[in-house]
Amino acid sequence: MKIGLDIMGGDYAPKAAVLGAIEACKTLSEGQKLVLIGDKDAAVSILQENNFSPDNFEFVHTTEVITMGEHPTKAIMQKPDSSIAVGFKMLKENSIQAFSSAGNTGAMLVGSMFSVKTIPGVIRPAMTTIVPKLKGGLGIILDVGANADCKPDVLLQFGVLGSLLAESVYGIPNPRIALMNIGEEEEKGNLLSQATYPLMRDTKLFNFVGNVEGRDLFEDNNDVIVCDGFTGNVILKLAESFYVITLKKRLKDEFFDRFNYEQYGGSPVLGVNAPVVVGHGISSPEAIKNMVLLSKNMIETNLIDKIKKAFQ
Amino acid sequence: MKIGLDIMGGDYAPKAAVLGAIEACKTLSEGQKLVLIGDKDAAVSILQENNFSPDNFEFVHTTEVITMGEHPTKAIMQKPDSSIAVGFKMLKENSIQAFSSAGNTGAMLVGSMFSVKTIPGVIRPAMTTIVPKLKGGLGIILDVGANADCKPDVLLQFGVLGSLLAESVYGIPNPRIALMNIGEEEEKGNLLSQATYPLMRDTKLFNFVGNVEGRDLFEDNNDVIVCDGFTGNVILKLAESFYVITLKKRLKDEFFDRFNYEQYGGSPVLGVNAPVVVGHGISSPEAIKNMVLLSKNMIETNLIDKIKKAFQ
Repeated sequence: MKIGLDIMGGDYAPKAAVLGAIEACKTLSEGQKLVLIGDKDAAVSILQENNFSPDNFEFVHTTEVITMGEHPTKAIMQKPDSSIAVGFKMLKENSIQAFSSAGNTGAMLVGSMFSVKTIPGVIRPAMTTIVPKLKGGLGIILDVGANADCKPDVLLQFGVLGSLLAESVYGIPNPRIALMNIGEEEEKGNLLSQATYPLMRDTKLFNFVGNVEGRDLFEDNNDVIVCDGFTGNVILKLAESFYVITLKKRLKDEFFDRFNYEQYGGSPVLGVNAPVVVGHGISSPEAIKNMVLLSKNMIETNLIDKIKKAFQ
Repeated sequence: MKIGLDIMGGDYAPKAAVLGAIEACKTLSEGQKLVLIGDKDAAVSILQENNFSPDNFEFVHTTEVITMGEHPTKAIMQKPDSSIAVGFKMLKENSIQAFSSAGNTGAMLVGSMFSVKTIPGVIRPAMTTIVPKLKGGLGIILDVGANADCKPDVLLQFGVLGSLLAESVYGIPNPRIALMNIGEEEEKGNLLSQATYPLMRDTKLFNFVGNVEGRDLFEDNNDVIVCDGFTGNVILKLAESFYVITLKKRLKDEFFDRFNYEQYGGSPVLGVNAPVVVGHGISSPEAIKNMVLLSKNMIETNLIDKIKKAFQ
């Protein structure tokens, strides 16, 4: 098994990425190899500074970097030797079995769709985020920004993707899928949620538990919350801002501790033909480590095959 | 000046409403009278228990109550002697100059539009909520649920309504109006926000400062955030849930204290021909008092005339 990591992605790259790779490497089993994609000289120098043998990794040297502000499609096209473009090329060729990066989210999405491509039957891939639950454990919300406008059948599919992720990767049995809405009753909502509700109510594809509201994000009445990417992105960034506020105010609480994105590693891109994880731009070594382990977990649990089967 | 208050609305009515009315009454000037609309016997009995003379108020006795779960339009039609229906009848006839209730939000919205009616030129009235800012002071977000689906010209108008509310009632000079979006750049967003941005950028109706994201809700880069009612309602309920979490965890902080809805009284319904305020269902006496004072403030600042003028 070869796990690809973009060491040029993220605000603290390549250092945070390489330090995270060291920590991830220590947890790998025999036959599992981490492939560092990016500036090899920089990586080797960081490894040597940290007395960690470069022999623990494979390296694929690249000469270009897609920065955070770049236009995703243009950047992928115009920088074929960027770590992200090369990573996706390798993923497509199965030289690596998963690819993760804390770099340009748009480029990671575009790269996924252009290279490994969307799984047949999936209308739109989605980005997910992990949410800590007040009573412990975690939940999933999707989409958090890949699709600003969604149709009801797209949201229905997000329910399938989220359910499989929750069950396979996070070990939640028979996950409870909820629809983000502005009221609990079936008839509540905007045109999108009103049209989606009956599709979800009548589906046998997952365990639909009805509408939830903004206040239910951290509650235990759901495992997976489905919404369009506009709503999900607003929720994600608002929730993050609360975490940042609790940090700045030095409010200590185990619930807030579990907000820490570092623990979760990143957001899986669901619905493409290989495991892809996008990390937070500010990813620390700990976050990078967990991003790598999440992508490994997506390989080991055969998530992609399960999704393919569900959409056959 | 006569200020109407529904004493049957809210989870703790009529007691919380009447106790709040007592507190509000103490702050009124000569010529300002609070009109209590609802079960007069119950109100008088609560006043007597609290040694407060019923002579301080006017009473309009009603025999019906619209409960929280009722269908708004049906309830207003089928319960003509409910406190909400009577309150709006009085508001329409100018027997009261403002009306507020912590009761059924939908019925308050429908009542506003059926009785005092939408101001000519306003496409859709909106509901607003107050947001505490981290650096102090407050901001406004609208719509928070009156219009689940919005068109770009409706959002543009929300900018006008929010700007006038911020300036007139909350004393914020030249309010900065922002569009809730999923990226700062002009081209970001869903179809709605992409179509709304150029309208706001080119308008001379208010001071547009561009896109904001979920993380900017409590930041000082805006005074008024405009969004559709679906997004706003999700934001409102998520933000409320954070406040509730900090309360449950007994996390003391002046910022969280300012989250307390009790201070703000309620949500003005903007774009109708009279001051209408809807309080939180769980309104305490303190919240009711501030709801009454907010509706009084809307009268005193001539907010409705200013809105009418803006839409002439």
